[in-house]
Amino acid sequence: MAVGDRVDRVDAIAKVTGKARYTDDFFRPGTLVAKYLRSSIAHGRVTGLSVEKARELEGVEAVFTYEDVPPIKVATAGHPYSLDPAHADVADKLLLTDRIKHLGDEIAIVVAENELIADEALALVEVEYEEYPALTTPEKILAPDARKIHEDSSNVVGEHQYECGGKLDEAFELADLIHEEQYYTAMVQHVHLENHTALAYMDDLDHIVVISSTQIPHIARRVVGQALGIPWGRVRVIKPYIGGGFGNKQDVILEPMVAFLTSKLDGQPVRLTLSREECMLCTRNRHPMDFEVKLGMKEDGTAVARMVDVISMTGGYASHGHSIVAAGGSKSCLLYPRMTIGYHARTLYANIPVGGAMRAYGSPQITFAIESAMDDAARKLGVDPVEMRIKNAARQGDINPFSKLPISSCGLVECLEKGRSLIRWDEKREDYRNHKSGKIRYGLGVACFSYGTGTYPVCVEIAGARIILNQDGSIHVQTGATEIGQGSDTAVAQMAAKTLGIPVENVHIVSTQDTDVTPFDTGAYASRQAYVVGNAVYKAATELKQKILDYAALLTGFPAASLDLKGESIVNITDNNTSVISLNDLALSSYYDKEKGGQLTADVSHKTTTNAPSFGCTFVDVAVDIPLCKVTINEIYNIHDSGVIINPVMAKGQVEGGMAMGIGAALSEQVLIDQETGRVHNNNMLDYKVPTFTDVPDIHHDFVETVEPTASYGNKSLGEPPIISPPPAIRNAILDATGVAVNELPMSPQVLFKAFKSHGLLKP
Amino acid sequence: MAVGDRVDRVDAIAKVTGKARYTDDFFRPGTLVAKYLRSSIAHGRVTGLSVEKARELEGVEAVFTYEDVPPIKVATAGHPYSLDPAHADVADKLLLTDRIKHLGDEIAIVVAENELIADEALALVEVEYEEYPALTTPEKILAPDARKIHEDSSNVVGEHQYECGGKLDEAFELADLIHEEQYYTAMVQHVHLENHTALAYMDDLDHIVVISSTQIPHIARRVVGQALGIPWGRVRVIKPYIGGGFGNKQDVILEPMVAFLTSKLDGQPVRLTLSREECMLCTRNRHPMDFEVKLGMKEDGTAVARMVDVISMTGGYASHGHSIVAAGGSKSCLLYPRMTIGYHARTLYANIPVGGAMRAYGSPQITFAIESAMDDAARKLGVDPVEMRIKNAARQGDINPFSKLPISSCGLVECLEKGRSLIRWDEKREDYRNHKSGKIRYGLGVACFSYGTGTYPVCVEIAGARIILNQDGSIHVQTGATEIGQGSDTAVAQMAAKTLGIPVENVHIVSTQDTDVTPFDTGAYASRQAYVVGNAVYKAATELKQKILDYAALLTGFPAASLDLKGESIVNITDNNTSVISLNDLALSSYYDKEKGGQLTADVSHKTTTNAPSFGCTFVDVAVDIPLCKVTINEIYNIHDSGVIINPVMAKGQVEGGMAMGIGAALSEQVLIDQETGRVHNNNMLDYKVPTFTDVPDIHHDFVETVEPTASYGNKSLGEPPIISPPPAIRNAILDATGVAVNELPMSPQVLFKAFKSHGLLKP
Repeated sequence: MAVGDRVDRVDAIAKVTGKARYTDDFFRPGTLVAKYLRSSIAHGRVTGLSVEKARELEGVEAVFTYEDVPPIKVATAGHPYSLDPAHADVADKLLLTDRIKHLGDEIAIVVAENELIADEALALVEVEYEEYPALTTPEKILAPDARKIHEDSSNVVGEHQYECGGKLDEAFELADLIHEEQYYTAMVQHVHLENHTALAYMDDLDHIVVISSTQIPHIARRVVGQALGIPWGRVRVIKPYIGGGFGNKQDVILEPMVAFLTSKLDGQPVRLTLSREECMLCTRNRHPMDFEVKLGMKEDGTAVARMVDVISMTGGYASHGHSIVAAGGSKSCLLYPRMTIGYHARTLYANIPVGGAMRAYGSPQITFAIESAMDDAARKLGVDPVEMRIKNAARQGDINPFSKLPISSCGLVECLEKGRSLIRWDEKREDYRNHKSGKIRYGLGVACFSYGTGTYPVCVEIAGARIILNQDGSIHVQTGATEIGQGSDTAVAQMAAKTLGIPVENVHIVSTQDTDVTPFDTGAYASRQAYVVGNAVYKAATELKQKILDYAALLTGFPAASLDLKGESIVNITDNNTSVISLNDLALSSYYDKEKGGQLTADVSHKTTTNAPSFGCTFVDVAVDIPLCKVTINEIYNIHDSGVIINPVMAKGQVEGGMAMGIGAALSEQVLIDQETGRVHNNNMLDYKVPTFTDVPDIHHDFVETVEPTASYGNKSLGEPPIISPPPAIRNAILDATGVAVNELPMSPQVLFKAFKSHGLLKP
Repeated sequence: MAVGDRVDRVDAIAKVTGKARYTDDFFRPGTLVAKYLRSSIAHGRVTGLSVEKARELEGVEAVFTYEDVPPIKVATAGHPYSLDPAHADVADKLLLTDRIKHLGDEIAIVVAENELIADEALALVEVEYEEYPALTTPEKILAPDARKIHEDSSNVVGEHQYECGGKLDEAFELADLIHEEQYYTAMVQHVHLENHTALAYMDDLDHIVVISSTQIPHIARRVVGQALGIPWGRVRVIKPYIGGGFGNKQDVILEPMVAFLTSKLDGQPVRLTLSREECMLCTRNRHPMDFEVKLGMKEDGTAVARMVDVISMTGGYASHGHSIVAAGGSKSCLLYPRMTIGYHARTLYANIPVGGAMRAYGSPQITFAIESAMDDAARKLGVDPVEMRIKNAARQGDINPFSKLPISSCGLVECLEKGRSLIRWDEKREDYRNHKSGKIRYGLGVACFSYGTGTYPVCVEIAGARIILNQDGSIHVQTGATEIGQGSDTAVAQMAAKTLGIPVENVHIVSTQDTDVTPFDTGAYASRQAYVVGNAVYKAATELKQKILDYAALLTGFPAASLDLKGESIVNITDNNTSVISLNDLALSSYYDKEKGGQLTADVSHKTTTNAPSFGCTFVDVAVDIPLCKVTINEIYNIHDSGVIINPVMAKGQVEGGMAMGIGAALSEQVLIDQETGRVHNNNMLDYKVPTFTDVPDIHHDFVETVEPTASYGNKSLGEPPIISPPPAIRNAILDATGVAVNELPMSPQVLFKAFKSHGLLKP
């Protein structure tokens, strides 16, 4: 069967040969180019703007400023529409503004024949500002006299607090050890290969068509409608192949603007493509967070209580805002569920680049704090970090203290045991006792994570699938699941093939989403797709299979219950699986018999009302060069319980990619912001240190395959989780090697230098 | 309600402003241009072909000849696939050939960077032929020693014979008058505004995509698959707006070739656009036919027996071949169904341009013969032609002698009475008695027609519709019905609006067919679409409405049976139609409620197993200038029973367009073929005499609206019928004015000159 097999990606050849079409490969004759005029300050107000010279430049089609845009504030976060206004995302973004909230904020936009003219026109625009102090740190933002970044809102975008799994005060009283520490994670960026880009035009019937590199075409459709104040049905969003998103394309950033421009320019096609520098400065980033963790442990390593207080900065606009820190907090409750947990989180506006969704959505930050604290406590108690985790780890049947629901599948203990064995934890740990001094020191680290699959019950989980039996017995599958490079088209093909019982080669996937006709789905995020679209594909394929067998029964006279679809034939299961009719002949009859049949299709929309927990851990072996403040990863393993693995090759790709991003966040990546001015020092690929090919070590992984009962194919989240646990595992390995607790990310040479110096490892 | 209203065409603004995109508006960077090398003889064999110089020309990508194409013969006729091989269309066409069967037959094809280079390359190709005598007339073709035009087939492509409504010999014995005469109709051409054109490329996943100006996208998909010997599911046909087809795009002419070319050229886009001259010579035409009619009448004008013997010439390839003359014959049986009818038809290959489908598919030819014979008999009997037709006309409940089924609706007598009154038949007839001599003579003519709706039971009638309730309460409708200018998108919108109960403005139509996702439908022909897609739209809209009301019941607690959808609200019909929830709120809930609902869609495929008869007549008042041999139409009326009229404005367009084409066929249009060589003299718009604006008189029409019980919206065929009866009505009016029976079409000045001279009206 197709599920579980090493099936080639359906788009493998297209991508390797360059045939795969991305947004910028779409072309309309006469396409105009738009470029933003962006603020050169991080906080203030535009007091003078002169665009006349730009407007008069030959080749300039139009210049629009904050005075020209609809007075409608929208929420850019790529979440489903909320039926409850109280839970809606914060609508705080105008298309253009004179009230500058971060460096690069959008003041005006030029539309020209080509990029050169657009650049020339931008240079002709004159802007005057009144500059305000940049509020770049929690202290500045929360100061009593701090200016409100959004005049109609507090600087605290969101705040919430809860306790679960018991009373926190009482639980801490049971502890033999109370460990308290502060941790910090820096702002990082997604750095997807394909920058944000969108093309819009008005079609034959004056619908606005937006072709966009988006993870969320159906949500983008809605937000464009909202931003322009037009019926949503008049907006059509098309999503071709995408060169990566990682959450940054789970925001609706360019689509409303290109839609606005084409609507103002009589339907002329307008393209808006961000440069890498704009993309890094003015799209979305991972929220930087400050943590205070208090952990209560029994002597034997049993965790009894944990309080986390976190401040997250969302930058100039809310975007996903407080839901990041909320989601990260609640998903972390699954990890050690038999303890009492407290959580207090605040999200602040700040005059820094805007925070949004990024792979694992808050969990990497919170898990860094929690899993660092666990190792700090283990060290104080003299307990083996792996043993301590096994003792506390979630097990199937445990109750999730946050949701109060039982954990439906869990292989975390098996993951820990497998990782311990693979990295030869006990043997090396013994061996490395002799390598804790000198220039090069060796250490082992471990960290765990827990995660969810999808967003239910916080948001609706809806997915659609339509399957058509073609005349030749092959099928076409349309889903709203968006292929963004993660392989969802291939997973869907495997699932449909498995449930129908046909070869995966006979499955054609409609990869491009088109919101006019593609079954509704909210998009690629929250590692939801293989889970929720899996349920929809299963339902559609089951329905279609039943229609096929019913029609076969009509044609052959055998009862449908005695028939099955195997390969390219309908077989009689009561007679040694003998073929009773080929699927091709059945298909031809369904189309062309004059009285019977009809095109056989299944068109389903399914809401998933469960949320499967996934788990896993990282084991890492590091060498730390003390004088060079350099960390070398000797070996690293991620072990995942993601339920049933749909495709081992694609799963490997997901895990390795996530681990590489985690290593970047652990050791080098950081958006450097000047705390005085809010300016960003490194919004380019030279100065922002993504690990290159030579920086990433050999990466290893393995799976513990549980069977998740709420998933039609037994699977759970896998897209995001691999990024979560590498940073704390590396941090814990550095601690093991050096005795130095590095409590911030990234653990760059600069940070290590400071830490090693203050701990006396380096001479001042 | 929307059905029956004068709703604006949904594409009106797009077409008037030029926004509507046709096949040639689709563009892919690097598109290559293909041009055929066509034979300069009508019959023979290529004995030498040298393409090397063409291949070496800079800018030429490739040259393919008859040696390079797949050895697969296909049937180009746009019919559904036949499950019974005995009833399949004749598969006689290779992509390229060395065995020339008509002038312009396709020998080779050049693919170049642009048209100029392609033309230059064609000029470098050297061809040598062995020429055979051109078989251009039935006599030559049927001669015992005639060469077989297709070596593996007789020159008689098809032949059939039947009697219905009694025994013919016995019926003729009851007749007081036997009228026997020969009639002839010439080859005419569709002359749609947009020539045949297609663009093909291979997409990301190596599917072959063909964008084509076709009436039959799903059939084109199948024929491309057959012609290339590849699975049909790997072919995708896209049909954008079309500038007219009239049946000529119900053949699969260019699609297999462009698909072949792109598959040979590694997926590069290739465009193949015919010139007007090629289009007139090498696509399809209306079959010329020779008739022998024998009509038996009672003295009082009761028709008792009719035998028609017809020879049709299909040209060099079968295309729709014998089915044209078969369909025309069977549909004419409905007109005077209480008589005995005999029919013998043969279709011949000939070395003339290929015959295919054209508006009304054989009926114009056969009806010219029958309705001319009726007037000839009326004249001999001294009976009023209108009275005679009323006496014999079909009435509701009559049995169709051919199908043996009752005629389910019929307003033919009312049509005749309405037309007689509108043209003031009796008054003018009296008046014109004094205008039968001199230079200008006046006359009145009448002719009737009968027609079917769709092709059942000859072919399958399948239509699909998918309707989506959008988030904003509007709907998107996808159907396989192809808009080819006739207004089907608008009719579908009206039907969906009516059944759902929503404003037609809230209906969005997906106009472009895409065979990967568009519900299956065999296309635009046989005046089938409003009838068969109407049944599918009704079913889909009814299903969607029930889903909406069921969901409203769930949300509001009212029983679904007490609810209805009116405008933009769900109302309680048991409480004065008070609104219980807006459709917009219901839609939002269906999408976004976390547990209930789901995207509401209906996806249906429906087979129609009925065939509704439509009827009508033409009344015309002419002045004939004897010396100039010129006919002036003073007044002309078409009166139609097409059941319920979906949209009076669009219906008017159909009727007026059809009448104008009928007038052209009556008076001026003819493809002039040299009987010796098979050469065509006038395959261009200068020499082929389509009536221009000044040639078409004011055209009048009216409807007799019956309600057809087998149609969901009470409608019957209207697209084709208006062309049928004008030519015989004009012929009968000329007879009335001059006493000269002109028994051939067109009744051009040349033909009239000959006729008037032989009748002594003009001095020799």
